[in-house]
Amino acid sequence: MLKGLTRAGIGELSSDKQFIELASKYGFQSVEVDAEALINEHGLKGAQELLETNGMVIGSVNLPVEWRNSEQEFLDGLTKLTVQAQAAVSLSCRTFCTYILPSTNRSPAEFAIQTIRRLRLCAQIIGGFGIKLGIEFVGPHHWRTAFNHPFIYKLEDTLALIDAIGCSNVGLLLDSYHWHSSGLTTADIDQLSANQIVYVHINDAKALPIEQLLDNDRLYPGEGVIDLVGFLRSLQRIGYQGVVAQEVIVPNTIAMTAEDSLIRSQLGFERVFSNIEE
Amino acid sequence: MLKGLTRAGIGELSSDKQFIELASKYGFQSVEVDAEALINEHGLKGAQELLETNGMVIGSVNLPVEWRNSEQEFLDGLTKLTVQAQAAVSLSCRTFCTYILPSTNRSPAEFAIQTIRRLRLCAQIIGGFGIKLGIEFVGPHHWRTAFNHPFIYKLEDTLALIDAIGCSNVGLLLDSYHWHSSGLTTADIDQLSANQIVYVHINDAKALPIEQLLDNDRLYPGEGVIDLVGFLRSLQRIGYQGVVAQEVIVPNTIAMTAEDSLIRSQLGFERVFSNIEE
Amino acid sequence: MLKGLTRAGIGELSSDKQFIELASKYGFQSVEVDAEALINEHGLKGAQELLETNGMVIGSVNLPVEWRNSEQEFLDGLTKLTVQAQAAVSLSCRTFCTYILPSTNRSPAEFAIQTIRRLRLCAQIIGGFGIKLGIEFVGPHHWRTAFNHPFIYKLEDTLALIDAIGCSNVGLLLDSYHWHSSGLTTADIDQLSANQIVYVHINDAKALPIEQLLDNDRLYPGEGVIDLVGFLRSLQRIGYQGVVAQEVIVPNTIAMTAEDSLIRSQLGFERVFSNIEE
Amino acid sequence: MLKGLTRAGIGELSSDKQFIELASKYGFQSVEVDAEALINEHGLKGAQELLETNGMVIGSVNLPVEWRNSEQEFLDGLTKLTVQAQAAVSLSCRTFCTYILPSTNRSPAEFAIQTIRRLRLCAQIIGGFGIKLGIEFVGPHHWRTAFNHPFIYKLEDTLALIDAIGCSNVGLLLDSYHWHSSGLTTADIDQLSANQIVYVHINDAKALPIEQLLDNDRLYPGEGVIDLVGFLRSLQRIGYQGVVAQEVIVPNTIAMTAEDSLIRSQLGFERVFSNIEE
Repeated sequence: MLKGLTRAGIGELSSDKQFIELASKYGFQSVEVDAEALINEHGLKGAQELLETNGMVIGSVNLPVEWRNSEQEFLDGLTKLTVQAQAAVSLSCRTFCTYILPSTNRSPAEFAIQTIRRLRLCAQIIGGFGIKLGIEFVGPHHWRTAFNHPFIYKLEDTLALIDAIGCSNVGLLLDSYHWHSSGLTTADIDQLSANQIVYVHINDAKALPIEQLLDNDRLYPGEGVIDLVGFLRSLQRIGYQGVVAQEVIVPNTIAMTAEDSLIRSQLGFERVFSNIEE
Repeated sequence: MLKGLTRAGIGELSSDKQFIELASKYGFQSVEVDAEALINEHGLKGAQELLETNGMVIGSVNLPVEWRNSEQEFLDGLTKLTVQAQAAVSLSCRTFCTYILPSTNRSPAEFAIQTIRRLRLCAQIIGGFGIKLGIEFVGPHHWRTAFNHPFIYKLEDTLALIDAIGCSNVGLLLDSYHWHSSGLTTADIDQLSANQIVYVHINDAKALPIEQLLDNDRLYPGEGVIDLVGFLRSLQRIGYQGVVAQEVIVPNTIAMTAEDSLIRSQLGFERVFSNIEE
Repeated sequence: MLKGLTRAGIGELSSDKQFIELASKYGFQSVEVDAEALINEHGLKGAQELLETNGMVIGSVNLPVEWRNSEQEFLDGLTKLTVQAQAAVSLSCRTFCTYILPSTNRSPAEFAIQTIRRLRLCAQIIGGFGIKLGIEFVGPHHWRTAFNHPFIYKLEDTLALIDAIGCSNVGLLLDSYHWHSSGLTTADIDQLSANQIVYVHINDAKALPIEQLLDNDRLYPGEGVIDLVGFLRSLQRIGYQGVVAQEVIVPNTIAMTAEDSLIRSQLGFERVFSNIEE
Repeated sequence: MLKGLTRAGIGELSSDKQFIELASKYGFQSVEVDAEALINEHGLKGAQELLETNGMVIGSVNLPVEWRNSEQEFLDGLTKLTVQAQAAVSLSCRTFCTYILPSTNRSPAEFAIQTIRRLRLCAQIIGGFGIKLGIEFVGPHHWRTAFNHPFIYKLEDTLALIDAIGCSNVGLLLDSYHWHSSGLTTADIDQLSANQIVYVHINDAKALPIEQLLDNDRLYPGEGVIDLVGFLRSLQRIGYQGVVAQEVIVPNTIAMTAEDSLIRSQLGFERVFSNIEE
């Protein structure tokens, strides 16, 4: 498994370059940055060298398509998608991710139909480039009533959605915070196969009943109550070899410097990863 | 367009053979019978000859798969599906149909996902045999609240569902009763292309506000208030060349003899079809 | 059916604007121009108005993806494809076309596999925009030995290819010259359904054995021996309502002025179209 | 990895029951038997118990569809396929396999198109039951000229075929004899991901130039020159956790008793498996 970072939980950064260099300095192997933007800033060769010099890969790129709103917005995004896919592949990144909120103001049946049709087209397009699509289910319970009607939030329903999309390059983005707040256990991971998991987020949670956990109130790995060692052990047992990226979403700006937040992240990763080997 | 019959609205029949012969006698060109059962009773050659002698085709076969309930029931139906598909094709029938109820006790999003996955597999299987799948949306408003949550019942949502299923052999079963009770007009048909319509049902409705129409309180074509001439003209205009089959669902057994009901059906068809040519 | 033009067979034109205006002047309803280029030159509104004022539609756009060569070229084309698809849809054009040569220097099995995979992805992408893909089989026999191994050139094999691509928005581009030189008859068209035909080209052929016909030695409609009246009647019989576009490929530049070539084209169309009604 | 057997290489057996019991006695964990036949003979419960008591699973079932010949034969096989799929799943077998010969008397392009269409439908059907399809490429060079035209036999072309089939439940059946005789190395395996491999066959080869190896002249694992330790190490490295089944195809009936052949097979497996751990 590759130790990775997202921007969430990291103090203010001046540039992607700084992010990549600090991530490398503190023992991380992947970051989430916009592949196209990185190439635009450094040129293709420059971007490739920046990553290579720092032993860094781009873990994942956010699916750059607005698939939740109007058809026009969706179609407009498809050109962005091919451009971003070309950029990502040229930097050896082969994972795009998106998430699904657990409630909706739309008719749930109609929104499910739209979700399948649109995510399938996105998956087909990036599949042409050899890129996978990770779909994240969202655990915190407050999201289930944030909009008028319940939508998809269970692991099994997300797997059914992936099945209905019907593309071999689509799988889960499994986030430890959503896993924990959904009441899932290591046994649920053990029943998956490695290729059903496209990407992993790691975070920790406060010692609250899971019904009370807020999505934007996460802790650094190892600082909370989630059984992250069990989480990682199960991922290892089923043969997952991809990225495990920290994504500490919090209410306000991180008060630490980027460097301090990196140190804290590194400590967290060491704490949980060092205990995996059984 | 072929003038067709279903059993609904026809008085008591002693056999499929009688159905086929009476349908022929009264000017119809297609009936809905179980292809496999017909072959089981008459042998393949006998069934083929019975149809041919009477200038009759099998308009459609009910999709013989329980796709709404448990996975086990669904999978058990797939063998029936291949057997029925082989039987249907051997009698030159290339249309299977199913319907979607406008409400559900299941989570609508989860049920939509299941519906797409299962109907797709059915469509793929019968598509292998050159058979199309017609999906019927159901108009009467009482169905929208028959179960806990609204599901799919609009034309546009049914088209979106068909799109999400993603097989070229899937289209609409358009029923005049559902068209009328959904508040649709000939303009809605004019915007379709002929190949989006796999099969057509024709029925008439009482002079009630469409919100009050009951699904099982239908009239024979030409005996009610539906603009069936406009309905057929639009189908003709867009180039639909398939079956138009009567399906007069009523609360009780038809009080007429089969022969009398056929006469009445024939009259109804003459009334509406004779006025199509503009 | 809409009477249409391609550039092939038309004398020198100074611009797309001139092409559109002359096509309109001489009774045509569609032209093949590059949608993106037209918008780039006239702006979206300008392009829309230019077409509308002249009662003209864009019949088809060439599939702007190099699907026959390297994977890199193919992937590079996908961005062009989304851009062209957006442009086409904004000008109400919903047809892209490509052709398949009857022989190849590649391993035919491997090239067939690649063709299916790549054309499927193209079809999926443009299908997202509501655009169809027409695939043209090529009749002249000299092409069958132009490269080392025979590839796809029969109607039935092209239909099988379309079936294997497996997208509902893919069909035939039927060209009268290829139809004739393949030895096909009106009976072959009668067995198709209208929705299997995405686009039609019309051309005439010299009075030679079909084995000797050259691909770039075509005549204007009505000036040769092809049974174009039968061709169009069959298309009408099965309900084809799309474009029939002239594509007179000849060895050298057309010696006529554009206007003269349009007059000649108009005469040809009148000759064959006026005899369709049975 | 599970140590498995096929019938090839095993002396005369009186029944599937004997096969299962002997396989268990000599340390194997899977056999290839016909799931439907086993249930027909022992009843569902009996078959389940027979397997469970002996700690045995059914490794794979031959795809029971004749996809290479006429459309009628193909369609007739689909009912057999659903029946066999139900039987297999009821005995927890989730792998069906088929192979592709390296040459054909058909037009290679047309045969490739048919292969994709038919194997896709088979894959879709068994995918409904949660079953995977393994496709085996065939290495021995004499097969490449056994029929008139070359077809698919390279690893990369087989992967392209799988890609063109486009179903997530389709992957490779990797056979060490075909791997060796194709000139492939462990580096080729290292570039695969575990989920691209559905099933593995293990065999050994004589010390001949690979061009001279005959398909039906195989040796027991460990008795020949194939780098089976490297083969298994690479499979382990990429995370393959499925069956590795012996399939020693030889010209004549095995002269040994079943028990002696099992002892020899067990020895072969011990020889190669004991050296995997690096």
